[in-house]
Amino acid sequence: MSSKIRIGIAGYGNLGRGVEAALARSPDMALVGVFTRRNPAELALQSAGVPVHAIDGIADFVDAIDVLILCGGSKTDLPAQGPALAALFNTVDSFDTHAKIPDYYAAVDAEARRGGHTALISAGWDPGLFSINRLYGEAVLPDGVTYTFWGKGLSQGHSDALRRVPGVQGAVQYTIPSPEAMERVRSGSRPALSTREKHTRECYVVLAPGADAATVEQAIVTMPDYFADYDTTVHFVSAEELQRDHAAMPHGGFVIRSGTTGADSSQIMEFSLKLDSNPEFTASVLMAYARAAFRLNRKGEVGARTVFDVAPGLLSPKDPAELRKELL
Amino acid sequence: MSSKIRIGIAGYGNLGRGVEAALARSPDMALVGVFTRRNPAELALQSAGVPVHAIDGIADFVDAIDVLILCGGSKTDLPAQGPALAALFNTVDSFDTHAKIPDYYAAVDAEARRGGHTALISAGWDPGLFSINRLYGEAVLPDGVTYTFWGKGLSQGHSDALRRVPGVQGAVQYTIPSPEAMERVRSGSRPALSTREKHTRECYVVLAPGADAATVEQAIVTMPDYFADYDTTVHFVSAEELQRDHAAMPHGGFVIRSGTTGADSSQIMEFSLKLDSNPEFTASVLMAYARAAFRLNRKGEVGARTVFDVAPGLLSPKDPAELRKELL
Repeated sequence: MSSKIRIGIAGYGNLGRGVEAALARSPDMALVGVFTRRNPAELALQSAGVPVHAIDGIADFVDAIDVLILCGGSKTDLPAQGPALAALFNTVDSFDTHAKIPDYYAAVDAEARRGGHTALISAGWDPGLFSINRLYGEAVLPDGVTYTFWGKGLSQGHSDALRRVPGVQGAVQYTIPSPEAMERVRSGSRPALSTREKHTRECYVVLAPGADAATVEQAIVTMPDYFADYDTTVHFVSAEELQRDHAAMPHGGFVIRSGTTGADSSQIMEFSLKLDSNPEFTASVLMAYARAAFRLNRKGEVGARTVFDVAPGLLSPKDPAELRKELL
Repeated sequence: MSSKIRIGIAGYGNLGRGVEAALARSPDMALVGVFTRRNPAELALQSAGVPVHAIDGIADFVDAIDVLILCGGSKTDLPAQGPALAALFNTVDSFDTHAKIPDYYAAVDAEARRGGHTALISAGWDPGLFSINRLYGEAVLPDGVTYTFWGKGLSQGHSDALRRVPGVQGAVQYTIPSPEAMERVRSGSRPALSTREKHTRECYVVLAPGADAATVEQAIVTMPDYFADYDTTVHFVSAEELQRDHAAMPHGGFVIRSGTTGADSSQIMEFSLKLDSNPEFTASVLMAYARAAFRLNRKGEVGARTVFDVAPGLLSPKDPAELRKELL
């Protein structure tokens, strides 16, 4: 019998594929199955020999899975799946609708407690590693200001918004942090920055046949919430260019804490990510937190948890003595 | 009766003064006394109304102090004080002799358990926040390489080494990370870097009367362990210049994890510090971990602990629901 942590994947989009790939680099974990709403026979996995099941029958696998990684979206999948599956399994997810986290936490917590499981919610990088760095910054430098910048990266939400504009056939949007704003923050001057000063938005758009470029551009740059508050650039490209040059999913960003200690010492803490693949990185974070969720559950820590509740050492396959010797 | 965490400071050098200053920015904590080996009457504190005591009588204060911050040095003070004081108090220290951490941990752990206390060792930034980032990097990106760069900053150990050179009256040494090496690391190419390629060393030296500059410079740049393996520059300055331009204690550095996910996606995680005052920042980290040590002890977690054992949320004065709402 294997002593590996037995992992299940619920949902097989970009994130689910990322988890599958990350598992190949985690020798202490084994993938026991992928669960999908699609027809299991039609799902082509990257790894050989891993069974695919219909998610409807997942309750049959409660004894076969130590931690289930929820790879659905935050808009419609997770609000339903998160609580329901936490009643049956230890879970890890990347729920990322910041404003709804307290409600989601409460719903998942109730079901996880009912089932005696540990449910690690909102792991990933924002929320996730960025949140941790916001917390460390504030705890260590209570007199200070925290700045979060995102990008350069492809924003799924803004790309979706572009695609809903009449006359747009295809599009992606990159969020770009302002180098000038970042330098001002790093100088320790604690600037007050407007939305427009912090980020710019760059759009690559394929026009639908017969659509008018000027009309489409105007509709984009004036779109409330998404683009109106930013300096937005629209580039019109061919469908081939979009496919060739903009199919990757890079992302990243910066969390900077600018604080003061003593009489007047400026202290700057900065955490940044530069990611070729946003979903693969998010998946890698989920794997580390799956290890932690398994260990927390074994220690009897039942209910919903967040990255704030997880001691760093629980994320590593190494034991505490090894960690002290090698990494401290 | 106050519900503040009652803090004692053991040792009143740069770090002790930094803790005193950090306490002024921590409304949930109160400084109840400073303990010194010097004559208490001769110690001038920054804060009014705080008593100074001889450290010999510290056992009388076991009921008055929730957490004692050990501000002695790692070379001779902490190896003796760490275990002895952990038998009497919950403690936090910044023991930073990396190679001796396992032995120190064992010695402190035994005494802390005997006394029913929680002893948080090796908090600060390296070991400390840098260690945490090495751990997060390795746990999230198991296929990767971690690089630590230090500086630009004043190295106490290397400055001390300079002062031991015959003919040197005064000196400071700055460690400077190589911008070229850092750019190679950030590119994702995972270079193998020699000691010489990673950092340079810059020395500001005041010659003793009658000393020969060329002889002193030669003795410095060929000194084994400290300078021989580096490109070292020696600047001779006057005692006035040294005092005027080099009295501050800036430091900082970078922890960079360069990893791969999926087929070939490069992922870079980077944490950096840019500190005007190294001791004040270290003191600020100690304050946050004092809060955590107090909470761990209340939960019955007795013995030695490191930053790897502390969930981020324990560092913040905010409660878990606030943290989820505001920072996640």
